[in-house]
Amino acid sequence: MNVEVEFPPNVLAADCPSRAVLKHLTSQWGVLVMFALQDGTLRFSALRRRVGGVSERMLAQTLQALEGDGLVLRVAHPVVPPHVEYSLTALGQEAAVLVAALGRWIEANLPQMQAARVGA
Amino acid sequence: MNVEVEFPPNVLAADCPSRAVLKHLTSQWGVLVMFALQDGTLRFSALRRRVGGVSERMLAQTLQALEGDGLVLRVAHPVVPPHVEYSLTALGQEAAVLVAALGRWIEANLPQMQAARVGA
Repeated sequence: MNVEVEFPPNVLAADCPSRAVLKHLTSQWGVLVMFALQDGTLRFSALRRRVGGVSERMLAQTLQALEGDGLVLRVAHPVVPPHVEYSLTALGQEAAVLVAALGRWIEANLPQMQAARVGA
Repeated sequence: MNVEVEFPPNVLAADCPSRAVLKHLTSQWGVLVMFALQDGTLRFSALRRRVGGVSERMLAQTLQALEGDGLVLRVAHPVVPPHVEYSLTALGQEAAVLVAALGRWIEANLPQMQAARVGA
């Protein structure tokens, strides 16, 4: 199967396939899932507790998109009741470092940004 | 005016105000606007050409949110016809470095991620 890739990929170009990955990784829930999985493997329910406010449906969609990009690994253990675990792939770990850096920066600079909003 | 901030801010908490900033910065257009403004000051129309596929309305909304967070500076020169320029603030430049790192990583690793999708 042929995959057409604009070369070099350019996220600023509307038709570049990198846009889809950007969308998954930088969706609000995508960022938080990557952030949460940085600490290790989690089951769906535990992941949902860590990512405050996410619905089951949004979490499932987010995980599916990140799995499709090869960033998240889904392992279903063949037991009853079902036991499904999610973790970052090697590629996902690289991405998570960058995503987490952004998350930590926002946390650290939030007071300044809130001051900007109040002063506006 | 009092601003309540959960301390320390935690993006994983649903009610933390850092979530709003995360949403602006990591919206698809937010990322691309920060990315585009890294090269310097741009007028609205030039910015819109750089960020492929963005509508006027979405670009205006995105800029307004980032301006409210103190990340983007809007300067309206009092001339006829109006001349409005957008640039990153010092805070915005810090954020843009992190956002751009993620964008460049996606561009560089796109072939691997596309292969993951095809192989899935």
